[in-house]
Amino acid sequence: MTIFTDVKCSPGDLTRVELEACYARTLVNPFSINMTRGLPSSEQLALATDFLFLPGRASFISRNGVDWRNYGCLQGLPEVRALFSETLLGLPTDQVVIAENSSLALMYEALGYAFRYGVPCQNEPWSQVATPKFLCPVPGYDRHFAICDAYQIEMVPVPMLDTGPDMDIVERLVLADPSIKGMWCVPKYNNPCGSTYSPDTVRRLASLPTAASDFVLFWDNAYAVHHLTDDEVSNQPIAQLCEAAGYANRVFIFASTSKIVLPSAGLAFFGASPANIEWFLRHRKSRTIGPDKTNQLRHLLFFGDRQGVVAHMRKHRVLLEPKFKRLEDELSAGFSGVESVTWTRPKGGYFVSLNLPEGCATRVVELALVAGLALTPAGATYPGGIDPYDSNIRLAPSYLDIETLGAAAQILVLCVLLTLAEKNISQL
Amino acid sequence: MTIFTDVKCSPGDLTRVELEACYARTLVNPFSINMTRGLPSSEQLALATDFLFLPGRASFISRNGVDWRNYGCLQGLPEVRALFSETLLGLPTDQVVIAENSSLALMYEALGYAFRYGVPCQNEPWSQVATPKFLCPVPGYDRHFAICDAYQIEMVPVPMLDTGPDMDIVERLVLADPSIKGMWCVPKYNNPCGSTYSPDTVRRLASLPTAASDFVLFWDNAYAVHHLTDDEVSNQPIAQLCEAAGYANRVFIFASTSKIVLPSAGLAFFGASPANIEWFLRHRKSRTIGPDKTNQLRHLLFFGDRQGVVAHMRKHRVLLEPKFKRLEDELSAGFSGVESVTWTRPKGGYFVSLNLPEGCATRVVELALVAGLALTPAGATYPGGIDPYDSNIRLAPSYLDIETLGAAAQILVLCVLLTLAEKNISQL
Repeated sequence: MTIFTDVKCSPGDLTRVELEACYARTLVNPFSINMTRGLPSSEQLALATDFLFLPGRASFISRNGVDWRNYGCLQGLPEVRALFSETLLGLPTDQVVIAENSSLALMYEALGYAFRYGVPCQNEPWSQVATPKFLCPVPGYDRHFAICDAYQIEMVPVPMLDTGPDMDIVERLVLADPSIKGMWCVPKYNNPCGSTYSPDTVRRLASLPTAASDFVLFWDNAYAVHHLTDDEVSNQPIAQLCEAAGYANRVFIFASTSKIVLPSAGLAFFGASPANIEWFLRHRKSRTIGPDKTNQLRHLLFFGDRQGVVAHMRKHRVLLEPKFKRLEDELSAGFSGVESVTWTRPKGGYFVSLNLPEGCATRVVELALVAGLALTPAGATYPGGIDPYDSNIRLAPSYLDIETLGAAAQILVLCVLLTLAEKNISQL
Repeated sequence: MTIFTDVKCSPGDLTRVELEACYARTLVNPFSINMTRGLPSSEQLALATDFLFLPGRASFISRNGVDWRNYGCLQGLPEVRALFSETLLGLPTDQVVIAENSSLALMYEALGYAFRYGVPCQNEPWSQVATPKFLCPVPGYDRHFAICDAYQIEMVPVPMLDTGPDMDIVERLVLADPSIKGMWCVPKYNNPCGSTYSPDTVRRLASLPTAASDFVLFWDNAYAVHHLTDDEVSNQPIAQLCEAAGYANRVFIFASTSKIVLPSAGLAFFGASPANIEWFLRHRKSRTIGPDKTNQLRHLLFFGDRQGVVAHMRKHRVLLEPKFKRLEDELSAGFSGVESVTWTRPKGGYFVSLNLPEGCATRVVELALVAGLALTPAGATYPGGIDPYDSNIRLAPSYLDIETLGAAAQILVLCVLLTLAEKNISQL
């Protein structure tokens, strides 16, 4: 099926009347496609089938002597930390804590300790600050922004460039304002752009002079091994660069296996300097006796070693890469000659970021919804859900099968072109 | 083996010199026994062996349509809530949330929301209160007290009677002091006494007039199905009584399957009124996308139905009951004629509470440690780790095999009798 069945020309060449006719045809039999979130597909979930039989009758005994079936081991089994610490966090084994199933929950938890007790580099609780602020590269991840809302942290947007957040702005802001306590960073294949912070950006983040001595980078390495091309981007050595710059405690690194094994049934990780790890575990000790070590062992038996993780991620790539290609092909064909619409071509991760002329995103999402395509709400990638330019839409190709994805992309193209026509916005 | 090998009389009849000789003999080949915490034994852990192969290739589809292998379902699978809600919490399915692996973490989390946002019955955050206080029945659970320390909650001890906390004192305190925001309750087979709150105590707790309109009972139903005798104590209808008394939002109920399947690999539950559940989920939504539903399904497949849970707990009882009997037999024999030493005879749970004459507990723990028996530290059952009478020791018989437990009990008897002799304290 295609949306532009009877169209002989490039969609960008259609008149408003022709576009409206196309759109009217889609309303006759509306689709029912949900493209709102970056869910793994059923085929990806099936890659973890063997995981569901584990650990079975495992005779594993950890080198720390802890019985994995009983209480204890707050930091996580050393063998499982060794399996993931370098690959997901770029850190040695003893600088990593394994928690429950959600890295988001770990970010929330670390913020809780910072608000109640302050962080190791300074003892003042963040709750004592009148208006604590976080820098938020935009477009960004809506759930990071929701955590800020929960803690009543004021969000200061910073534009994303191809090299990462605009560092000239970041440097100016953090030097001027001691109430800027932290910054969200998705350094690699980020959500939603799919781009990666350049080495220079990472170096500047590690060595920033800041007005707040307890400024912390919340480094969400969500897509550490989630490559889509042969140009596999390495983890950036942020912890090492912070230490070299004299700010060893500046960064909290987060990761999880949600998009490696199964969403919600994976492991979440916190990585940081030795002082930060001591701080985190000291407070965590009041909160829980220990994490689910059975699930840790399940991971160890499933992956075996680091190469096992890499090999498993290749299987994800085999399923994901054709979807990103199809989306790219549809957008390239649909927007041929339409220069005012751009999008990203990620080398990894789960998202493509679509940029429209100012004032168009809400209308496109609205038109698509009526035609049966649910897109991520316009504005979702901005603090407070408000995109000041109303121009960005996050596209999530992972969940749909390729044919449905193709249809979704064509509906999207149609709705964008129709919006441009409605608003008399030039395609150039 | 026995400690009192050559003793012809009851240990209580030994002179100080004879006791010292016995003790000196134990030091020749000191034991190495750890009885500090209520860990399930290896035999108990083995009861969950089949659990470790699940869910396997399960074709389960939840009635709510959620794919258990993907993101979502913040409240937990309805089928799994139905399995545990009545049995563990005495609540309907929709008044229960399934979280991660630790009920302690849920208590910590609920307190976090109360401190940041206040609870539904009043919107004032508890962080606004100069000195928030909690009533702490003593002796009690050290990890509850550690959570109070973490939140800088002042702990107000209330003596435990055979019927539960001394309600005359509770009623007087909460009526007088609006900064008393909550109370720890282990209502059934409690830690460490093993006793159960009487129906009258539960009714009075539900209907207490309090100075604070946002007073909350933190009802830790840790031992809901952990019976040791045929006299199986039912769950107390605390939520229903609170509602009937006009305080529907007064209670947060917590439970877990840690001591049902495996410690650290179980599920934790939060149960409360509809308004409290809405409050809890509203804040939890910023914290996590959802819990580990694979582990929820694992529970469903392992237990099948409520009767499956009951049947499984019978297997635990078969392993635990002889240990409690052996401990009881050793204490009865060892303290025959020694009326100043008493202990509890629990019908469920994991602990026995030993009460010594004032000023003896620390010395007994010290003597035992030198002889190679690690007991729960004296004072651990009191806020701040300080037992004002220095008289209570928590005994944890679950982990040891029966012969080792017998030896441990005899060392304990010896150390108690020696302490009484050293301090010239009458046995009567």
